[in-house]
Amino acid sequence: MEGVAEELYHCGFEGVNVTFTSDIKEALTGAKYIVNSGGAARKAGMTREDLLKGNAAIAEEFGKNVKQYCPDVKHIVVIFNPADITGLITLLYSGLKPSQVTTLAALDSTRLRSELAKHFGVSMDAVENCRTYGGHGEQMAVFASTAKVNGKPLIDMIGTDALTKEQWAEIQQKVTKGGANIINLRGRSSFQSPAYVSIEMIGAAMGGKAFRWPAGTYISNDKYDHIMMAWETSITADGCHCAALNGTAEEQAALDKSYAHLCELRDEVIAMGVLPAISEWNKLNPNIK
Amino acid sequence: MEGVAEELYHCGFEGVNVTFTSDIKEALTGAKYIVNSGGAARKAGMTREDLLKGNAAIAEEFGKNVKQYCPDVKHIVVIFNPADITGLITLLYSGLKPSQVTTLAALDSTRLRSELAKHFGVSMDAVENCRTYGGHGEQMAVFASTAKVNGKPLIDMIGTDALTKEQWAEIQQKVTKGGANIINLRGRSSFQSPAYVSIEMIGAAMGGKAFRWPAGTYISNDKYDHIMMAWETSITADGCHCAALNGTAEEQAALDKSYAHLCELRDEVIAMGVLPAISEWNKLNPNIK
Repeated sequence: MEGVAEELYHCGFEGVNVTFTSDIKEALTGAKYIVNSGGAARKAGMTREDLLKGNAAIAEEFGKNVKQYCPDVKHIVVIFNPADITGLITLLYSGLKPSQVTTLAALDSTRLRSELAKHFGVSMDAVENCRTYGGHGEQMAVFASTAKVNGKPLIDMIGTDALTKEQWAEIQQKVTKGGANIINLRGRSSFQSPAYVSIEMIGAAMGGKAFRWPAGTYISNDKYDHIMMAWETSITADGCHCAALNGTAEEQAALDKSYAHLCELRDEVIAMGVLPAISEWNKLNPNIK
Repeated sequence: MEGVAEELYHCGFEGVNVTFTSDIKEALTGAKYIVNSGGAARKAGMTREDLLKGNAAIAEEFGKNVKQYCPDVKHIVVIFNPADITGLITLLYSGLKPSQVTTLAALDSTRLRSELAKHFGVSMDAVENCRTYGGHGEQMAVFASTAKVNGKPLIDMIGTDALTKEQWAEIQQKVTKGGANIINLRGRSSFQSPAYVSIEMIGAAMGGKAFRWPAGTYISNDKYDHIMMAWETSITADGCHCAALNGTAEEQAALDKSYAHLCELRDEVIAMGVLPAISEWNKLNPNIK
């Protein structure tokens, strides 16, 4: 940690006050904006459930610490996986409003942009409005209907020679496995892209430039409830707010499936005792219905 | 390399075209601005000079490649160590003008700012105009006379209770060993600060914001000649130009000593056969007298 701080000092930034500590009270007291990458990575011999259990407990402790040391925090971005679940736990234990806790889901959308640019051999800028919704894990809904390539709707190209159905399925798979691919290529989990994009989210939450990608946010509507997942959102100084999300019947079905998967994970966490039954959530955090 | 590119793609930058290759011809053809970090990295226990032999040969090849593939390059920043020597070799073999090749020496000055801020317990911004000149190695001239802390000249504080001579000597030592300290702390050579600061240099060379620190540049004046070292400079779209450099007698002596050390290194490289005798430099690069 000291080495990272030293490197930042040596950049010679102006108007920046970098500090570091391993004391959670010192770290959080008075904090206004937080990015939390503080979970464990999955190690050899660990099952997915082990990872879930460990990081769920870390998120619970983090949420409680936020409540104790910085209840006036403006916005928190949770980026440790499974982020949909760790973000949800953080929200519940922190007592914050749903608009104040988001998770980093945007990398799936940026990965879709990247894979489409590579497939079509065009610049990234020629690929517009890529979106994935739902979980930031093994089950996500990679949408086609929002995106355009060189101004043409992507969905009109799927099933043509420009992009066969098989190729589109491959791209969706590459997007879903984008994080795993970084681990294969670099021998470690991605770090530059989560750092950059999560700070863009915080920038938007501070009233800065609009955030251009979906965020993971608490969802409570007619169809989906008591879950945190990637959604069409805007992040402003008032926090994260949901917008309309439209897709084809096939895309909606993929989103339903992703939601169902997240509900299973959430219920596992409830069974573990990390979260209470949904009926008790309002007692834990009155901002949750 | 692919993993790094993927991470950059996933940041979702706009207006950026990231490509990568391990083919030197493809990498350099048409290049206008280059940062070269392409030497072997320093490992724990090694001094910058230990790297000399291997990286001198790499710099020679790089300079020749620049001459062959991108003779119209505008500016090159060399950041692999010992940068004073690799920069000099690059300049000579590339055939470029001295104003077009600089080295990353600024981290010593930013480290001085950082160490002074830590010593005085003030914000980095309260420490102004820190400068080190001469070599970016074990022998550098860490100046006091340029700097101010909270608006007060640093040099007036040295030898007082605020900063004893011993403490100042310790700070100078920490600055000189700043890079080695990063290796000790992180288990690898610094990378964020060189990346950030070298791109600031390129930004200035593209006509952007002024670069606020000394650069390593080719020096040819009454006192020092045929050497590359940190100097008071300005970097603009016209390249790097030297300004006046003033110091106390003690500081000038430290600079003389640093210069003498660099001359020894340069002469080692000549003895190795990587560089010709100084009398032949003009034949190698007509821009050098």
